[in-house]
Amino acid sequence: MAAQTSEAAVLIEYKQPLQNRRYPVPENVGDGEALVRIEMAGICGTDIHLWRGELPIPLPVILGHETVGRIERLGPGLTKDWRGLPLAVGDRVTWTSSIVCGECYYCRVKRQSTRCVGRKAYGISYCADEAPHLRGGYAEYILLRAGSSIFRLPDTLETEAVVGSGCALMTAIHGLERAPVRLSDTVIVQGAGPVGLAALALARESGAAKTIVIGAPDHRLALASEFGADHVISIEAVPDAKARRELAHRYAAPFGADIVVEAVGHPSAVPEGLELCRDGGTYLVLGQYANAGDVPMNPHTITRKQLNIVGSWAFEPRHMDQALNLLDGTEWKRLFAKQVTHRFPLARANEALDTVSRHMSGKAVIVP
Amino acid sequence: MAAQTSEAAVLIEYKQPLQNRRYPVPENVGDGEALVRIEMAGICGTDIHLWRGELPIPLPVILGHETVGRIERLGPGLTKDWRGLPLAVGDRVTWTSSIVCGECYYCRVKRQSTRCVGRKAYGISYCADEAPHLRGGYAEYILLRAGSSIFRLPDTLETEAVVGSGCALMTAIHGLERAPVRLSDTVIVQGAGPVGLAALALARESGAAKTIVIGAPDHRLALASEFGADHVISIEAVPDAKARRELAHRYAAPFGADIVVEAVGHPSAVPEGLELCRDGGTYLVLGQYANAGDVPMNPHTITRKQLNIVGSWAFEPRHMDQALNLLDGTEWKRLFAKQVTHRFPLARANEALDTVSRHMSGKAVIVP
Amino acid sequence: MAAQTSEAAVLIEYKQPLQNRRYPVPENVGDGEALVRIEMAGICGTDIHLWRGELPIPLPVILGHETVGRIERLGPGLTKDWRGLPLAVGDRVTWTSSIVCGECYYCRVKRQSTRCVGRKAYGISYCADEAPHLRGGYAEYILLRAGSSIFRLPDTLETEAVVGSGCALMTAIHGLERAPVRLSDTVIVQGAGPVGLAALALARESGAAKTIVIGAPDHRLALASEFGADHVISIEAVPDAKARRELAHRYAAPFGADIVVEAVGHPSAVPEGLELCRDGGTYLVLGQYANAGDVPMNPHTITRKQLNIVGSWAFEPRHMDQALNLLDGTEWKRLFAKQVTHRFPLARANEALDTVSRHMSGKAVIVP
Amino acid sequence: MAAQTSEAAVLIEYKQPLQNRRYPVPENVGDGEALVRIEMAGICGTDIHLWRGELPIPLPVILGHETVGRIERLGPGLTKDWRGLPLAVGDRVTWTSSIVCGECYYCRVKRQSTRCVGRKAYGISYCADEAPHLRGGYAEYILLRAGSSIFRLPDTLETEAVVGSGCALMTAIHGLERAPVRLSDTVIVQGAGPVGLAALALARESGAAKTIVIGAPDHRLALASEFGADHVISIEAVPDAKARRELAHRYAAPFGADIVVEAVGHPSAVPEGLELCRDGGTYLVLGQYANAGDVPMNPHTITRKQLNIVGSWAFEPRHMDQALNLLDGTEWKRLFAKQVTHRFPLARANEALDTVSRHMSGKAVIVP
Repeated sequence: MAAQTSEAAVLIEYKQPLQNRRYPVPENVGDGEALVRIEMAGICGTDIHLWRGELPIPLPVILGHETVGRIERLGPGLTKDWRGLPLAVGDRVTWTSSIVCGECYYCRVKRQSTRCVGRKAYGISYCADEAPHLRGGYAEYILLRAGSSIFRLPDTLETEAVVGSGCALMTAIHGLERAPVRLSDTVIVQGAGPVGLAALALARESGAAKTIVIGAPDHRLALASEFGADHVISIEAVPDAKARRELAHRYAAPFGADIVVEAVGHPSAVPEGLELCRDGGTYLVLGQYANAGDVPMNPHTITRKQLNIVGSWAFEPRHMDQALNLLDGTEWKRLFAKQVTHRFPLARANEALDTVSRHMSGKAVIVP
Repeated sequence: MAAQTSEAAVLIEYKQPLQNRRYPVPENVGDGEALVRIEMAGICGTDIHLWRGELPIPLPVILGHETVGRIERLGPGLTKDWRGLPLAVGDRVTWTSSIVCGECYYCRVKRQSTRCVGRKAYGISYCADEAPHLRGGYAEYILLRAGSSIFRLPDTLETEAVVGSGCALMTAIHGLERAPVRLSDTVIVQGAGPVGLAALALARESGAAKTIVIGAPDHRLALASEFGADHVISIEAVPDAKARRELAHRYAAPFGADIVVEAVGHPSAVPEGLELCRDGGTYLVLGQYANAGDVPMNPHTITRKQLNIVGSWAFEPRHMDQALNLLDGTEWKRLFAKQVTHRFPLARANEALDTVSRHMSGKAVIVP
Repeated sequence: MAAQTSEAAVLIEYKQPLQNRRYPVPENVGDGEALVRIEMAGICGTDIHLWRGELPIPLPVILGHETVGRIERLGPGLTKDWRGLPLAVGDRVTWTSSIVCGECYYCRVKRQSTRCVGRKAYGISYCADEAPHLRGGYAEYILLRAGSSIFRLPDTLETEAVVGSGCALMTAIHGLERAPVRLSDTVIVQGAGPVGLAALALARESGAAKTIVIGAPDHRLALASEFGADHVISIEAVPDAKARRELAHRYAAPFGADIVVEAVGHPSAVPEGLELCRDGGTYLVLGQYANAGDVPMNPHTITRKQLNIVGSWAFEPRHMDQALNLLDGTEWKRLFAKQVTHRFPLARANEALDTVSRHMSGKAVIVP
Repeated sequence: MAAQTSEAAVLIEYKQPLQNRRYPVPENVGDGEALVRIEMAGICGTDIHLWRGELPIPLPVILGHETVGRIERLGPGLTKDWRGLPLAVGDRVTWTSSIVCGECYYCRVKRQSTRCVGRKAYGISYCADEAPHLRGGYAEYILLRAGSSIFRLPDTLETEAVVGSGCALMTAIHGLERAPVRLSDTVIVQGAGPVGLAALALARESGAAKTIVIGAPDHRLALASEFGADHVISIEAVPDAKARRELAHRYAAPFGADIVVEAVGHPSAVPEGLELCRDGGTYLVLGQYANAGDVPMNPHTITRKQLNIVGSWAFEPRHMDQALNLLDGTEWKRLFAKQVTHRFPLARANEALDTVSRHMSGKAVIVP
């Protein structure tokens, strides 16, 4: 039986410690809603951006958009998960962070619902002051809205694999759907964080002949090697961009990578990445989630090198379906689960944020 | 019978007037070569960049890479044009400016021969001091190398239409092959020069529902209207970028263009153009031929708007085939021929260059 | 004010005359529903298949799935049309014939909702014996379900253009989205019925360089010419398939069409059509809506000619959006409106069916 | 030093034993030509079709188009292989079987050179009565024409891997380039011969989530399992097509395969294969190399299931480049090399043919 109140770690002011608050757990769950007791919540790099105030959100907010939990109460009419499997109290589930309107120009006319004008995301877009309050993952309970895309997890897929791959894996699946790796491609990944590692995994799974990861710190490059990167380049050991470029081009002989995936987030990565593509290659700008301002770029490069530059924002429920299928069907689940290196109780959520912001962890999680 | 010498207008020093020189006309034409008496040579915007020294070329050079002439002598073995039609002395022909090696990584492995590592272009890459000298269009004669892609022109297609559409049309065909306009698309073209107008023509021919051209000066915007643009925006009348953007978005309601084609050449057009795309739209960077340095850009835009940015360099012989077919089969030939507004004899080649550099003409041509 | 009962022409037994029956007009309209007074209902070729019993449907059924009418009553919550425009009583509207579940494997995982496992179509899938009965277009009233995709028609777009283009235009838009006509393509259309003419219109609008229509009878080929076909081939004048093929290849020199669109419906058209494609070409099988059994085909042709064969089923609401935009923005609306050559009152619905089944009309419609 | 004459196994009359003949080995090798001493020649399934007279060829012919040998003499000007690597006498090489004209409509305009109108293949298209006779692989020597696509083999790649994968691997690479397997796809392969196994290898390398092979005999299905098939279905154990289909659909739940690859060659495989695709899926018709006549097919299936059916013929040199890269970079070379189960001297070439025609071998080869 659910508790009467739920603890939650709440972002009240940017760059200030989260504060733990209690909110009432709803006794009655509305049509199509689900009350979920949270078992594990991932700390995403985006949470750091949110905490710093780099994206526009309503405060206060309960952070947390990569979450696994167990169904505690099911509202009327909610009998099946996104895949059509029966849902019951006690089921272990995950869900997509976003709900889209399904009716706007982007949802309907252009079928690009990640750009839905009415999109709202758990852990990001809901003000915690407004009932029903519990709309983020850094909490004991979350109340999922009707229309949420809920996925029942198979027993063969452990919670650590789901949270360890996180929204990074779905983001990378969407990105590489838009800019596919083809058999025999040479792929360079800029960034060794969760998105970079997910892109590396997908590149390898898609038949890349050679994969090169550029990033830091060393413990993450070691993870990249464990994920099968043929070469890693440390931006700490090779801080000079020109030297990095020469090294990358040596690995990606003769002319650079067929696909370069940006998973860094700093604007400066983008002009550097354009130079790592072969002529006629593809550059997937996957990591520029926060608006960090302008960077000098030379557009002549785009015309002369005949490049394709592809942006990709977030993901759709079908990418979570693919991600869970991929994890459950391969050895990758073991590797992603191993990424979960740091666990914190809800009371120590600030330590979890700090661990991620200082790049100390594989994946840090909250276990309420 | 061909003359013994050919006059040519030669670029000897950047930013200095072309000088007219005479070179011997070869009596014997080698295997697969063709001697052509030039009837009309177009002045391309790229010629202005070359004249200013903005692209690396060997001096001295006979400029001119958009040319129509008549075959004067045919070398042994050259019996058919690119399409397999018989070639004879006296035939009116045009040809692609470039020859590629056919053997390098880009020609063979990646099938992107516009990026051939050994590509050489008439009017651009050949030093006029080296025999056989006559490798550019601003001359009475040109000697075409074996392996040139020569197209015999049908009688129904007048020289003005071919030179008037110029390399701009092929460049736009290649670009829009890489970033196709789909039926019902809204298309914005930045730039009302030859490439911009060619892109406009192709967008309309491809079923664009709405076309908007942003450019100057007024006589070129009038041409854009004649080419069927639904709206034109003058950068002289609306010099403020923000105001231009608002106006363009009003025309491209509700969220911007499905495709924006950059045909300006100034780096500053690129960040402006990104803002004119709807989310999930495509930006074709078609005009950044000279290296004009960096411009501040915000890569967050690429990720957030989920854009496709496509570069395209030059064109292949098959695009000339398409261009000639398009012209010959439609009313566009009449409109492109009308672009030829200024004619100069070879002796006044400098006036021709000046006319183009001051945007005074539709298309300026040399008639030797 | 709506009448208390609505007349309807009902298919009770296959191949037997429709019978006119009366059904109650609902006084109260449920959440999201709309009661529409029908102004014009098109007779689609599929209606003939349905009448003959060639597709599995529940009898009795009110036929009619291409319809324009005026809103008589709006249910609670239905305030906007599919495009987000406000809806009011008295608005002239059309709507897609089908509603999909939005939850199945095809709707969600594969985003191909035309193959939705729970798809139901007005005029096809609803038994007229079951309340609320009024689910087809051959009637005075129709009750649209919540979730219907309703489009308010602009005043500039006359009813004849909408019904005259019918579901054929949307079907062709979907098909050619899956198998796009590219600029300069040669296109052969098999069939001069509504789908064939719609495909012809779209091919021309998409920049086809040459279009050839093969079909009958002569009055429909005359329409094809009016729609801009470069060549028409009468299957009555040239009944021999080999002779037809030679003629088509002469028009589509040198090697056949880039795209052939099948819009006939007889299985025998398909092996004939494969031979009309150039090697490496595309064959769009757009017209095989009824299961008319097997036809001998040689699969060696598919491998050797390196073909793409594309099937396409029905359409989605966004294709109706495109169709209405296309009509309203071009001269095509005038041409499609002219297709409406025969009008019948509801009492003479059987004559309308007969007219279509004997290929006597451009488009026959019922005006209740 | 090369011998003065070369033995060759020659097909003189269809369905009759090959006869061993001797031809002069040319002392002087022309511009761009290469004389190669053959080390291993594979028996391709196509050779059986040729032997039976099922494809039009000039007799007599020296069969053999999958060959590895060492360069014995190099003609003037032939200094580099297809990749630009230096070539020298003694180098171990392979080469593509075909040479294309580079000038026809398919080579130039449509860039589909596998459909070149002047294409000629070693071991297939050259009459052995005409000098220089030695144009097939079942011989001690072969004289390669100028313009052949020759690949120097790295020491790390053993001859058995190259001949063991044979033209099947390149054929499958081309096919799956035209109909790509995407990450997470379910793939069914019809046929467990060399093309089927190559398609299986590529599907797995491209991230297929599930692979199912339908074929025979058991020793080949065992190879399929060793290549990583998740399920195999024996057409001997399950001879009933309906039962096979039910079994395949059980493995490819819920609705069939995303991609089905036909690698059987019997026309009857094609209608069966269409039923194995999910709606909206892709059917790659890769194995119908010989014209074996018509088969009854229902085109309604194509429209209703909204299928993509893709044909693919042979391969281009760049696919051999990819094949060799793939083999050399992965464990697949070991598995393909293991396919070479039967070796015969040139004198016993007829036994080699017989072994293949009775499906007794993995891969049978001739070692002259």
